[in-house]
Amino acid sequence: MVPQWVIEKKRDGGILDEAEIRAFIEGFTAGTIPEYQMAALAMAIYFKGMTDEETAILTDAMMRSGDLISFDGWPRPTADKHSTGGIGDKISLMLAPLAAAAGLAVPMISGRGLGITGGTLDKLESIPGYDTRLSVGRFKAVIESVGCSIIGQTDRLAPADKKLYALRDVTGTVPSIPLITASIMSKKLAEGAESLVFDVKCGRAAFMRTPEKARALAESLTRVGRALGRKTDALITDMDQPLGRTAGNAVEVNEAVETLKGGGPADTRALTLELTAMMTVLGGIYPDRETAKTALARLLDNGAACEVFRRMVEAQGGDPAFIDDPSALPQPGCTVELPSPRAGTVEAVDAQIIGRIVLQLGGGRQAVTDTIDPAAGIDRLVQRGERVEKGQPLMRLLAKDRATIEPHLAAATQAITF
Amino acid sequence: MVPQWVIEKKRDGGILDEAEIRAFIEGFTAGTIPEYQMAALAMAIYFKGMTDEETAILTDAMMRSGDLISFDGWPRPTADKHSTGGIGDKISLMLAPLAAAAGLAVPMISGRGLGITGGTLDKLESIPGYDTRLSVGRFKAVIESVGCSIIGQTDRLAPADKKLYALRDVTGTVPSIPLITASIMSKKLAEGAESLVFDVKCGRAAFMRTPEKARALAESLTRVGRALGRKTDALITDMDQPLGRTAGNAVEVNEAVETLKGGGPADTRALTLELTAMMTVLGGIYPDRETAKTALARLLDNGAACEVFRRMVEAQGGDPAFIDDPSALPQPGCTVELPSPRAGTVEAVDAQIIGRIVLQLGGGRQAVTDTIDPAAGIDRLVQRGERVEKGQPLMRLLAKDRATIEPHLAAATQAITF
Repeated sequence: MVPQWVIEKKRDGGILDEAEIRAFIEGFTAGTIPEYQMAALAMAIYFKGMTDEETAILTDAMMRSGDLISFDGWPRPTADKHSTGGIGDKISLMLAPLAAAAGLAVPMISGRGLGITGGTLDKLESIPGYDTRLSVGRFKAVIESVGCSIIGQTDRLAPADKKLYALRDVTGTVPSIPLITASIMSKKLAEGAESLVFDVKCGRAAFMRTPEKARALAESLTRVGRALGRKTDALITDMDQPLGRTAGNAVEVNEAVETLKGGGPADTRALTLELTAMMTVLGGIYPDRETAKTALARLLDNGAACEVFRRMVEAQGGDPAFIDDPSALPQPGCTVELPSPRAGTVEAVDAQIIGRIVLQLGGGRQAVTDTIDPAAGIDRLVQRGERVEKGQPLMRLLAKDRATIEPHLAAATQAITF
Repeated sequence: MVPQWVIEKKRDGGILDEAEIRAFIEGFTAGTIPEYQMAALAMAIYFKGMTDEETAILTDAMMRSGDLISFDGWPRPTADKHSTGGIGDKISLMLAPLAAAAGLAVPMISGRGLGITGGTLDKLESIPGYDTRLSVGRFKAVIESVGCSIIGQTDRLAPADKKLYALRDVTGTVPSIPLITASIMSKKLAEGAESLVFDVKCGRAAFMRTPEKARALAESLTRVGRALGRKTDALITDMDQPLGRTAGNAVEVNEAVETLKGGGPADTRALTLELTAMMTVLGGIYPDRETAKTALARLLDNGAACEVFRRMVEAQGGDPAFIDDPSALPQPGCTVELPSPRAGTVEAVDAQIIGRIVLQLGGGRQAVTDTIDPAAGIDRLVQRGERVEKGQPLMRLLAKDRATIEPHLAAATQAITF
């Protein structure tokens, strides 16, 4: 395999064969194929695309670049969910325990937030004591005893993806459906789950801005997953307005607890039920989605899902006190309510503006090395379609002090359209 | 300047501004912008192209990455020629002294051959003693006293091109008109000549296979040269059959001497006159091309051009004995004449096959580190339109021994179509 011939073949619109793709990824992972050749190939793929078969081989090659977790012979069906990322997206916190309460085993490896997009891992780390860095053995033990576990990525799962993602990030080759598919899928497949559900976000604060692009990614993910022997399904969901009434870390954990107790905002509960229903249907727990949603709603309302959540937190070293007492989570030094400048019905809540404010309040990171203030964020956020009176709060901003909050009040007002 | 933003801008079809291009090339040359970002940008340029203005800025930035030779204040107009490379292309050997005999100063920096394409420098190095590695000061002194000098590339002229070309070669980004233009022009402009003539080869043994692509490159080269303040002209010439009756190194020097003495193959003499005429017209020596060709033909026929060639060889340390006695050049260990299998009129001589045979006889290099047998090659080659009888030689193959020649006789026969 001569790397530049492979690059030229793709550049000229050719279809790469299995041996070419595998040798390229193996060479890149081992360092025998230099980054500049991988960058050129990635740009050629950006322009010329890949067939589903090429994407499946690429995904498989990247998956096999590291360790593979196996649940072969386990009594419970295994399933996981992946979201392409949004503002206020705390669904995993409810979905994993709810799916486990329904009888699935959920091995969930989550990421950190970057830019305006939050990360499940950062949210969990606002829970005192919660350890996101379990060994694979401990991860499997928690899933076996509790039904689910949520941990962070390890260097040993799909290292080719880690290396390629860092390269794509600085070479203008991130927005390519086959490369995004292989990146997401190689990690998810390495986790070992038999069924995978994808929540592809679409809207102004999402990676996919248009329905066409969101659909293309959803179809690529599901087809490639099936080609590699997994059961897959996908949902395209709105990311014009934030999900729920909170965005940040500790505030989102609080909202997750409310939802796990049968409450929480309607959109958050509905999406939790919808995605978990898809997982349980794929896993053979329920015959269809409507039956699943009815059964799962009961597992939220009767406290069963919350109980699994409590056991997962305990199994991973966390103090579950916050489940009964929200003040056990990190608290902000200052909170400011934003009064509405007028009366009216909320037409839109701009998720991108909300995401940027949370970032600047300290609730996100601009660079991977930044540290997060777990208490910073926004809660009590109004939602589309709600009626507010003049002076009634539109949201509450939380940060370490007033000086951190005040510069963002004007932008916060502009996030709400009447 | 954030490199990935520049890559993304070009990827999305944007026009890069001057500051972006200069900062990218400066960073790449200095090593602060890594090769993988340059590779991604080159692939984006391959797909999205560049405007003439972008190409001119890129060329200028690459030219300014190293030393610039200046002929400001010289009494003679300066001019040079560049050929995109072909089989049997020994034109520079006659053109430089002929142009000098007509009154131009010709600062010519030439390259080595690679693959089937020969290099002027390798041909000159078959002359015993000829030194192609002059300092810039000595180069200018030879031009001042003789009128022309032909030397090899130095690391100090357009180092950005050297680095970028090596990268393009292994990343599938060679065949891009703006990148080819900037590569050729940055070196030629750094030489300091006021006028530049381009011989863009077109045909099966040329880099540009179709007339459309050859025309696009010719237009890009001339327009960008003009945008950067030089007088430019271009000719598109055939490279389906080799130029002249020889291909190799010493054999081509011999044919050059014949042509400089007023003889030589008709195609070789005609192209020498045409390209030199263009240079002298641009340089203001003659009013038009026809007048120029008549005057230049006289300078070949009266020995004036050959005398300049002799003085250039001497000035660069070479022994000019070969000009009067061809046996003073390196001689092959074995020569084999190839008899024609039939009688007929030659319809085509495949330059690509001839080029490959010369390479395998030892007259070229497959890798830059290969050494060349200066005596190896082909001479006495038939040309298109000639009548041959059965058994009459089609060409003569020269190499170190019979074992090197024999495997290529069958291919050599196939190079000739009747």
